[in-house]
Amino acid sequence: MPRLYWEDFHPGRTFEHGPRRLPRDEMVAYAAEFDPQPMHLDEAAARQTMLGGLAASGWYLCCILMRMCADAFVLDSSSMGAPGVDEVKWLKPVRPDDEIRLRATVLDTRASKSRPDMGFVRFEFDLFNAAGEKVMALTTSLMLGRRDKAAP
Amino acid sequence: MPRLYWEDFHPGRTFEHGPRRLPRDEMVAYAAEFDPQPMHLDEAAARQTMLGGLAASGWYLCCILMRMCADAFVLDSSSMGAPGVDEVKWLKPVRPDDEIRLRATVLDTRASKSRPDMGFVRFEFDLFNAAGEKVMALTTSLMLGRRDKAAP
Repeated sequence: MPRLYWEDFHPGRTFEHGPRRLPRDEMVAYAAEFDPQPMHLDEAAARQTMLGGLAASGWYLCCILMRMCADAFVLDSSSMGAPGVDEVKWLKPVRPDDEIRLRATVLDTRASKSRPDMGFVRFEFDLFNAAGEKVMALTTSLMLGRRDKAAP
Repeated sequence: MPRLYWEDFHPGRTFEHGPRRLPRDEMVAYAAEFDPQPMHLDEAAARQTMLGGLAASGWYLCCILMRMCADAFVLDSSSMGAPGVDEVKWLKPVRPDDEIRLRATVLDTRASKSRPDMGFVRFEFDLFNAAGEKVMALTTSLMLGRRDKAAP
């Protein structure tokens, strides 16, 4: 049985996770497979770009964020996934071997009108680098099963 | 030199790519690494969920979409990346071995006020399954270098 149901999420509640190091070889391997733009793939080419040096693909950061959320609370909850994402902001370059921390903050919650067994919880997920700078912010609503409607 | 600059993108212009098959083993390997929720990892457990069977992680689809965009036009353009994502909608489950097609549509474009060497192009990126159903829609603005300001 999950430990966290929809009823356990209240505005302002936070979950934290990390730090998690992002090794250069994994960052570059991801880019080679999914986002082979020069700024994510090659140090010399990246120096000529707006990012001023090799930096993680924003999509790689989304993957890492998802995994950190899973480890922080999602796998221990009645999560039913998400219908989408409201917004993603990539705020600063994330460099090879940076150490990343996650903070998840509940923004608001609402019951589902069509499905009495679930509700929505809207989160802001923030990633911070080792210097404490916010490097990414993502807003999305998760669907979570309700404790009071769970099968006995 | 890139073939496509900011000036080459006009509202309504489309780019297509695919089909690309999403093999079961790659879909599940991604989930094991980044999104290990039961509906993405295990057929029997997934049957008990809202998705009614094993389905791709939405984040895996974002990765695939990025790669299809890269192959469709981004790697042949003056792309400087994106500051974020406006919205992602996961509309239908994507099943193992589904074949996915990408359609990128230019919504609008604008010059940058602060940087005369670049402009923004807002896109809707849609993924379709083999049955022609739209399974995902993503809206974002790419930053692209301008031809008329490119170094000679």
